[in-house]
Amino acid sequence: MRPGGVELVTIGTELLLGSIDGNAAWLGAALAERGIRLVRRTTVGDDEADIRSAISDALDRTSIVLCTGGLGPTRDDLTRPAVAGLFGRRLILDQRWLDIIEQRFRERGMIMPPTNRVQAEAPEGARLLPNARGTAPGLIVEEPERGVVILLPGVPREMRALTRDHVLPWLMQRAGTTHPIRTRALRTTGVSESGIAEKVADLVDAVAPLTVAFLPAPTGEDIRFTCWGDLDAAAADAAFAHAIQRFRERLVPWVYGEDDADLAAVVGELLRARGLTLAVAESCTGGVLTARLTAIPGASDYLLAGHVAYANEAKIGLLGVRPETLAEHGAVAEATVLEMAEGARRRAGAECALAVTGIAGPGGGTPEKPVGTVWIAAAARGPARAKRLHLIGDRNEIRERAAQAALALLRRELEERA
Amino acid sequence: MRPGGVELVTIGTELLLGSIDGNAAWLGAALAERGIRLVRRTTVGDDEADIRSAISDALDRTSIVLCTGGLGPTRDDLTRPAVAGLFGRRLILDQRWLDIIEQRFRERGMIMPPTNRVQAEAPEGARLLPNARGTAPGLIVEEPERGVVILLPGVPREMRALTRDHVLPWLMQRAGTTHPIRTRALRTTGVSESGIAEKVADLVDAVAPLTVAFLPAPTGEDIRFTCWGDLDAAAADAAFAHAIQRFRERLVPWVYGEDDADLAAVVGELLRARGLTLAVAESCTGGVLTARLTAIPGASDYLLAGHVAYANEAKIGLLGVRPETLAEHGAVAEATVLEMAEGARRRAGAECALAVTGIAGPGGGTPEKPVGTVWIAAAARGPARAKRLHLIGDRNEIRERAAQAALALLRRELEERA
Repeated sequence: MRPGGVELVTIGTELLLGSIDGNAAWLGAALAERGIRLVRRTTVGDDEADIRSAISDALDRTSIVLCTGGLGPTRDDLTRPAVAGLFGRRLILDQRWLDIIEQRFRERGMIMPPTNRVQAEAPEGARLLPNARGTAPGLIVEEPERGVVILLPGVPREMRALTRDHVLPWLMQRAGTTHPIRTRALRTTGVSESGIAEKVADLVDAVAPLTVAFLPAPTGEDIRFTCWGDLDAAAADAAFAHAIQRFRERLVPWVYGEDDADLAAVVGELLRARGLTLAVAESCTGGVLTARLTAIPGASDYLLAGHVAYANEAKIGLLGVRPETLAEHGAVAEATVLEMAEGARRRAGAECALAVTGIAGPGGGTPEKPVGTVWIAAAARGPARAKRLHLIGDRNEIRERAAQAALALLRRELEERA
Repeated sequence: MRPGGVELVTIGTELLLGSIDGNAAWLGAALAERGIRLVRRTTVGDDEADIRSAISDALDRTSIVLCTGGLGPTRDDLTRPAVAGLFGRRLILDQRWLDIIEQRFRERGMIMPPTNRVQAEAPEGARLLPNARGTAPGLIVEEPERGVVILLPGVPREMRALTRDHVLPWLMQRAGTTHPIRTRALRTTGVSESGIAEKVADLVDAVAPLTVAFLPAPTGEDIRFTCWGDLDAAAADAAFAHAIQRFRERLVPWVYGEDDADLAAVVGELLRARGLTLAVAESCTGGVLTARLTAIPGASDYLLAGHVAYANEAKIGLLGVRPETLAEHGAVAEATVLEMAEGARRRAGAECALAVTGIAGPGGGTPEKPVGTVWIAAAARGPARAKRLHLIGDRNEIRERAAQAALALLRRELEERA
């Protein structure tokens, strides 16, 4: 295999009209795990000229091209003739595979429809990869001057099995032994992408040969480290440990976990380890925060109660917020969120509490308190501590961000004071 | 626009390593809706030479290339220099956009980090598309001999808003008028995909030239009708109306809306129209049901309070469930869910109530009450009515399905009894 890596061509008109290309994602991950570098992905519709040109373009850049889709029995399945045409080869019937297809139909009490016959045809000289789950075999077509084209059906379970059983072993053998491409991540919240970049700018080169990517999401920023297969397992582990330690120490207040850590689970573990219980009071997040906490199996061990108190009457009746506080400061205010937290804690008999009140929009904003103004409060044994947020995004994003910020505040309270 | 249509280049190393390319799917659908043909999609990593070559290749085939990603403030964001290099242009600072970015940071009480400055740079002569949701503007770069490259940020909400507000109108103007590819949908819940297919099998051909697709989701089944641009607007409207009417009359008990209707919004409108208020009591759904209701703007008009009562003590203390009921029947039982609904309604002074209690898993199941056993109750003025569910899926799917079933039960109660 040339160091250029492999390219992928996914074929199917639906992929251009809005369908998610799950095969491309799955193959990307499967190749990375084996240390095979995917350098470019192309998607074309069910058009013979487009398929031929996409594969030909890919072969101009690299020597191995994987393709998915277009191997079915219908008129819009054109990958076989496209590849035959590209290499100037005839399509030849493989009698053995035809027998297998006919046998498959017979076993299900059916007669093979004539249209399926084309699935036993392959460009002259191609190697057939038997498909145990469907009627289209995989095909490896090699042209000495150009490279290798590997054709796989688009049906995900057939494509995956053929890839695992035939294609990956073939690629590994071609590549010689190599190390898998591995990734690790640090998860942060409460700091912007540019804020992180500034704090760690000098570290990006210092962790080579790992590469560093910054991935923003509504609930925080992930920092992803990738090891591109140039290190063995022990060296990669050491490089990851070094990188994670260097980045962590610069970003202490914001890092809440690694890889696929969930901040609600991190908070849950802190509560469990300290033997503490929690009550939640929500206004603008409307259940999103409690749902985050209860999504974690075993949350019933520490979460005693959650309240959604939208109306002032509910804040007073359910949570014991004082009417004078609401009259003087309004529903979105430090005094109010602190009383919500204290009330939730008191009513449930919990040691800890979280409260959120704010304006998620689209309506309800004012010049002094625009949409996105949110007060959060967290209490861990001691008195509740409040924080004002200015969040951006639509209603759902503001709710998600507010819930994440509240969890982050409780995490800090638990680590510092409980 | 040449009849060749447009190409899309999505940029981001994570897209080659296994991340789902949601932007590509969304843009494919958005272009199809406007009758703009997407002919090829390419994905490359965060590598300046790869980005330049992918865009250059695309411009060899078509005259309009959309790109997403690589416009952030960090060192792995290389789309701006790649396009500048491709067209031999300098990157020029746009002082007006820099002022806007700085202002955005100031409004949030922050100072713009120096790294964000590059986001105000654009290839000389580019047209900036203001991004109301982020710091990277969209860019339209036109090179008379080659074509047009449109750069969009990879953050989905920013990319979507810029596409809707600027890119699609620009493309429509370039393309002249054409019949869009249009879709309509009927949304159902509480009936299986095969159940629907059986009830409407004979209707699928009867609605031609519309095509029919059945799309299963955890919260129900959608039936999607597509008109492929072969009808003008009036004829398409008539065909859709006919199809929707025929399918609706077969599926009355299960259809809750059309297109992107949300069952929580449908229930909210029924409550609003009848001047009724609602209280919610949740155990296993843990806030998911209340969060569904409060995701709808204006939900505070009818939703008085929500309670998450995981522990038996909370069911007794918060909701007034009788200890004897819990002792005799357990937490997942008809008597318990009915008392939860009545208690929530009484405590909040609401006319209507919803309650859910069940076993979302992965733990907690027994032979008599396996994981997925859920009791729901709904009350609309009259006494609460309960229903037992046997749900499949993981913890999150069971929670989502239970919340949707509870909303469906309240919808029927409201339509039949209030």
